[in-house]
Amino acid sequence: MAAAIDLKQPKPSEGGGIEPLVRLVESDLKRVNEIILDKMQSPVALIPQLAGHIIAAGGKRLRPMLTLASARLCKAEGERQMALAACVEFIHTATLLHDDVVDASELRRGLQTANAVFGNKASVLVGDFLFSRAFQLMVEDGSLKVLKALSDASAIIAEGEVHQLMTANDMATDEGAYLEVIRAKTAALFAAACQVGAIVAGRPEADEEALYGYGLNFGIAFQLVDDILDYTGDDGGLGKSCGDDFREGKITLPVVLAYARGDESERAFWRRCLEDLDQGEGDFAHALQLLNRHRAIADSKGRAQEYGARAREAMVVLPDNEARQALLDVVDFCVERLY
Amino acid sequence: MAAAIDLKQPKPSEGGGIEPLVRLVESDLKRVNEIILDKMQSPVALIPQLAGHIIAAGGKRLRPMLTLASARLCKAEGERQMALAACVEFIHTATLLHDDVVDASELRRGLQTANAVFGNKASVLVGDFLFSRAFQLMVEDGSLKVLKALSDASAIIAEGEVHQLMTANDMATDEGAYLEVIRAKTAALFAAACQVGAIVAGRPEADEEALYGYGLNFGIAFQLVDDILDYTGDDGGLGKSCGDDFREGKITLPVVLAYARGDESERAFWRRCLEDLDQGEGDFAHALQLLNRHRAIADSKGRAQEYGARAREAMVVLPDNEARQALLDVVDFCVERLY
Repeated sequence: MAAAIDLKQPKPSEGGGIEPLVRLVESDLKRVNEIILDKMQSPVALIPQLAGHIIAAGGKRLRPMLTLASARLCKAEGERQMALAACVEFIHTATLLHDDVVDASELRRGLQTANAVFGNKASVLVGDFLFSRAFQLMVEDGSLKVLKALSDASAIIAEGEVHQLMTANDMATDEGAYLEVIRAKTAALFAAACQVGAIVAGRPEADEEALYGYGLNFGIAFQLVDDILDYTGDDGGLGKSCGDDFREGKITLPVVLAYARGDESERAFWRRCLEDLDQGEGDFAHALQLLNRHRAIADSKGRAQEYGARAREAMVVLPDNEARQALLDVVDFCVERLY
Repeated sequence: MAAAIDLKQPKPSEGGGIEPLVRLVESDLKRVNEIILDKMQSPVALIPQLAGHIIAAGGKRLRPMLTLASARLCKAEGERQMALAACVEFIHTATLLHDDVVDASELRRGLQTANAVFGNKASVLVGDFLFSRAFQLMVEDGSLKVLKALSDASAIIAEGEVHQLMTANDMATDEGAYLEVIRAKTAALFAAACQVGAIVAGRPEADEEALYGYGLNFGIAFQLVDDILDYTGDDGGLGKSCGDDFREGKITLPVVLAYARGDESERAFWRRCLEDLDQGEGDFAHALQLLNRHRAIADSKGRAQEYGARAREAMVVLPDNEARQALLDVVDFCVERLY
């Protein structure tokens, strides 16, 4: 069966991009958006107001699309996957809102986040509401397997976010710790989102595991790409803007590699910029030079390709259909953003 | 059966205080504390560190005690209530951590909270972890009824907290809005904590509802007492210190009543102090005078007694045993703190 999938990295022109996925789930996603809009309502006016702000701005609904496409891949019948895809988006949105929370030190640096509009506290509490609402929807659905998949993912995400907080501004972070963080904070939800599609279709554990493995590796690739694009340029409006991670002192793979391969004066540069956040004009440009000198960008791209390949590989055991192809294409699309 | 409970407000000497409850659940609570300690562990060191900080400081474990006593009242067998009582405490702790989050404006006023030690972001993320962990434990327990009770409570709490945020510093808040807030942010978890005891015992819906009603009314009384004590004095180390609500501009029942009954100059005083947070020496003392002049404290106490009586009344349909008596006593103990 392995022959059914080209595990080699495809050339940019070969893949179908994100379009096949978007087309595949278009009508389902409409229903999901209705559920999202309906379930974020509350008599407490600030809740739909703030939730609407971030959910409307949220963009492409990649995670719920993964649930919908996985359900299609597994030939799920009925409507359950619509509400569960909404749960996945609610959990993701809650994470974004809580990620927006800033500390006094960051406020002093004048960071701009969505929370600038509503404040820390409102972001936290509305996030809590969406998170609780997700669990209410899962309880209504009634599957303990789904509840397990998404409560496990939620705990792992929270662990990953705390872990990231601990590695921020710490140049001692190594590649292992970095991968641990992105596996937890990003990939765990991708994995569970896909797994849920197999669960609602009542498929055997092996299929659940295959989709989980696909989602996990895709999620790691996705975050790697996001972190690389933060140094290499505009990503077409799909993510954050260039240089944010550097300014905030986030330790991502390109930096980890350049730091490990740098001499003592280079290491002092990274520590000044990312640990002390003492940055001046020209520092970002210098950082880019160092990243290129040590092949840190190129090797990070290689890593993203590797996890993309693993995601495709995980799909081998699953039936070859339109949904599987769309899920394979979106991995390629993601990795190709780097080129 | 109503004759089995004295629904009149008992004199301070009559009640058994909190002691019967503490004795009743002492050994169960030890087990709950072990579960709490075990389940707050994580390879991410900051999680047990921060969680331990607040859980150790957390004090008396009233909410899990309610679950344990309710389970005993309903003659629950087995051990399920121990893990579920830990869930209740985790949800409560997560709420406390998220309640600690402050906005820039508050930081500027130099507020001291637990979050001063670890920062906003860590408080939020560790709260998320405990909240997710609670759901993992419920999933392990496997009861959709329990999951429904506690996910419903969580959503209501979040709504209540946002509602409170909207009523803060707003003297237009009336008694109805105030009661709505405390019913949601405090009483919903008391209610669910008690209901869970009936669920694990497999009791009929009527018993679940009775315990839910007990918890809801007790929770409202409890919060009313807490809010009154913030103006009338020291509460023996059980809650916050006197004057906090006034300094923060929280709109609680005593203030709502005094404002409604005050003349225009008094209203201007309340608006300056609680809306503009423009407070000077002598303002708190003047506030106390106004509260007493308009019987705002006395009438708030009356309200607390009324909800205490409702809590006792809800118990009438349940069997008269040691656990029921302990739960009745703790209501009296709570209301008697006012005298």
